[in-house]
Amino acid sequence: MKPVIVVNYKAYYPQSFGENAVRIARDATRVYSELKGEVELVLAPPYTEIRRIVEEVRGTGVKVFAQHADPVEPGAVTGFIPLEGLVDAGVKGVILNHSEHRLKLADLNMLIKKAGKLGLETLVCADEPETGASAAVLNPTYVAVEPPELIGTGISVSKAKPEVIVRSVELIRRVNDKVVILTGAGITDGLDVYAAIKYGTSGVLVASAIVKARDPYSVIKDMAVNALKATRGQ
Amino acid sequence: MKPVIVVNYKAYYPQSFGENAVRIARDATRVYSELKGEVELVLAPPYTEIRRIVEEVRGTGVKVFAQHADPVEPGAVTGFIPLEGLVDAGVKGVILNHSEHRLKLADLNMLIKKAGKLGLETLVCADEPETGASAAVLNPTYVAVEPPELIGTGISVSKAKPEVIVRSVELIRRVNDKVVILTGAGITDGLDVYAAIKYGTSGVLVASAIVKARDPYSVIKDMAVNALKATRGQ
Amino acid sequence: MKPVIVVNYKAYYPQSFGENAVRIARDATRVYSELKGEVELVLAPPYTEIRRIVEEVRGTGVKVFAQHADPVEPGAVTGFIPLEGLVDAGVKGVILNHSEHRLKLADLNMLIKKAGKLGLETLVCADEPETGASAAVLNPTYVAVEPPELIGTGISVSKAKPEVIVRSVELIRRVNDKVVILTGAGITDGLDVYAAIKYGTSGVLVASAIVKARDPYSVIKDMAVNALKATRGQ
Amino acid sequence: MKPVIVVNYKAYYPQSFGENAVRIARDATRVYSELKGEVELVLAPPYTEIRRIVEEVRGTGVKVFAQHADPVEPGAVTGFIPLEGLVDAGVKGVILNHSEHRLKLADLNMLIKKAGKLGLETLVCADEPETGASAAVLNPTYVAVEPPELIGTGISVSKAKPEVIVRSVELIRRVNDKVVILTGAGITDGLDVYAAIKYGTSGVLVASAIVKARDPYSVIKDMAVNALKATRGQ
Repeated sequence: MKPVIVVNYKAYYPQSFGENAVRIARDATRVYSELKGEVELVLAPPYTEIRRIVEEVRGTGVKVFAQHADPVEPGAVTGFIPLEGLVDAGVKGVILNHSEHRLKLADLNMLIKKAGKLGLETLVCADEPETGASAAVLNPTYVAVEPPELIGTGISVSKAKPEVIVRSVELIRRVNDKVVILTGAGITDGLDVYAAIKYGTSGVLVASAIVKARDPYSVIKDMAVNALKATRGQ
Repeated sequence: MKPVIVVNYKAYYPQSFGENAVRIARDATRVYSELKGEVELVLAPPYTEIRRIVEEVRGTGVKVFAQHADPVEPGAVTGFIPLEGLVDAGVKGVILNHSEHRLKLADLNMLIKKAGKLGLETLVCADEPETGASAAVLNPTYVAVEPPELIGTGISVSKAKPEVIVRSVELIRRVNDKVVILTGAGITDGLDVYAAIKYGTSGVLVASAIVKARDPYSVIKDMAVNALKATRGQ
Repeated sequence: MKPVIVVNYKAYYPQSFGENAVRIARDATRVYSELKGEVELVLAPPYTEIRRIVEEVRGTGVKVFAQHADPVEPGAVTGFIPLEGLVDAGVKGVILNHSEHRLKLADLNMLIKKAGKLGLETLVCADEPETGASAAVLNPTYVAVEPPELIGTGISVSKAKPEVIVRSVELIRRVNDKVVILTGAGITDGLDVYAAIKYGTSGVLVASAIVKARDPYSVIKDMAVNALKATRGQ
Repeated sequence: MKPVIVVNYKAYYPQSFGENAVRIARDATRVYSELKGEVELVLAPPYTEIRRIVEEVRGTGVKVFAQHADPVEPGAVTGFIPLEGLVDAGVKGVILNHSEHRLKLADLNMLIKKAGKLGLETLVCADEPETGASAAVLNPTYVAVEPPELIGTGISVSKAKPEVIVRSVELIRRVNDKVVILTGAGITDGLDVYAAIKYGTSGVLVASAIVKARDPYSVIKDMAVNALKATRGQ
């Protein structure tokens, strides 16, 4: 299968908004096109930027996800994020249970099921191999295992804790042979992506290394090229 | 002072999104212009629609608020709503502590203070006159008292519980002589708005009566005209 | 293995406290002794009653669990329930993720691991077969599947939704062959317990049928006798 | 009025439980009796220790409070702390909104009202003078202002930020002339208590300085004697 790079814009970096948000999307579509769509690229901007980014990537193959959804039914839920509203805004999927926005187990299950019915993909984050396997039982599209203590450090899990990746793959595959497994936390460059794939996952969840980059294009390109190399066994 | 009508689009009615969301904004700007800006109109769309609505009302005098903000600092807060992100999206203010999205007292204080520094107005909802007065001590721009049992019923507080409005004004004015006081819950038509102002508040917080209306223009116009009449003592 | 009956006193029925709380414990120890300990009996009283009940059942074989624990570390956590405090109060285990007190997936994992280190058993509740299997991956001692819509109804899951029990056993056993599986929600009498075991689980989680009974002894005895019959294949 | 010293045992220090918990209560009753009840002493142990401590202080004049209550109605609320259960366990009051266990404004109001109906006193914590005044509008028995950054530091608010105490008294008295005002955070010895009263409050909320003390009696005595001196203007 194709390697995957998911870019979490986070809820607020100055670079997550406005022109810079669009620029990252433009850079992603350029890389996607240069690599002939052989690396899956997913962008997760803040809610207020979703429509712009959806517009920017329309027709390119690059996907837009929301960063979160709340376990609510449509209606009187002022200021919450129902899945139905995200569909309306044009996303293809949603990140759930990010380490900065954990969900209750029952709510996670409810959201994964409902997202499926609404035609949305789901990317569930987990802090450990065990919770990754636990989440995998609920049949999301992706599971990303991210040791929270490495998030935002610039020290990648592939360097600092490769055993976490190996064990995640092992535990998750015991209970689910289809879910796409990603690596997250501290992913900084192409080498981290290369290692994440070599250790058995299908790609990465990355944030500041791309969003805060002076030249997001180069970082995305470097990561995507390495993802492709690793996947092809080079 | 000018009477105020705040339209809460809620997080999800089918009408809260897309073309209909823009239509309500267009109707509001039409009424605003017809009444020469003598009634303050505030629109609170879902997060994903904020930029469109801000664009739509630009230069008209109609204001856009967010429905909520989370008590977080910018940075690693995936899927949350920091005030800084709302500023970037162009809102003029934010609803806080809506009955469907209550906040902790300490967080409410933190958000009101920070919003002030960022140049945003704050509209704090409260369920009872007592909590309205408690919130008023924190110096938000507006306080709206909304008995939760009437929200969404179509039975307005001005008809069912006028004593709640009277008592709200009394308790709030004891502790704050500047905050703008609004009435909410079950507001359906111009008569409800008229009564809300006659009982001593400056306007209303309204949702489904406008958002789900076949002809939002007529409802907004009816409410705004009555608000003006009541304010002028007619 | 031995059949199991877990009695959730809930956080507040008038009968959950004081002399009646002790009476239920005395009735449970009487049944336990009459059945020569061949049915496992677990009591989960409110926090304030734990020490009394622990005292009452000391030396009898009946176990005391807490109804919940908070995912906190010891120290400055005023008004929360750390596992360490429960150990000090003398419990043998803890219910986690009850339908009335759901936990985040990551916290559930943290609590199960820490409880294990502290020598406490864990009973994790789940609302559906899928979440039951998801929880089972985390290796608690027990998993109880309780459809929330039946809790407190007096309509037992064994009568209304036997397929939920069957599917729970099937999904949970795919991922964990050791965890003890319980049935909950609406359990009213011995027949419900009999059915719960016949459908493949090891016992029940029950609340009002025992706690609010005029004669708790008779209900516990009826349930325990039926549990034993079902387990012995009679 | 009498000066007040409230001892928060916190949810878990090793000293908060068992024999040591009882010893602190015994020390408090000794001081209370030596000072002929002229200093109000309140003990807030963990939930599991409440009954023991209530038993220990029975008939002495020393009061027992719970550390928190949850905004729930009696019934199906497994693992929560309803006010009704606390009444049953024998407390005279409850701490609400501690900095480590914040409550929503609407819930705080609901709990203060219900506690009043149940005959319980309420002690509401606040992080700043503004939130202290906001809480005071809801008419609790006590308000304690505790800057969270000083809690547990051993640096008392009376030394590090006396202006917080002065401003708290000023803002709170503007909206409520009856509520008893306390000072909290970092209170270490009698001098801190003396200063807290000299700056205009009626006493202190204290935790580790007493609970972790080798000789709790001496610390309580020192604080109580200084409280009395300050109140008598010595």
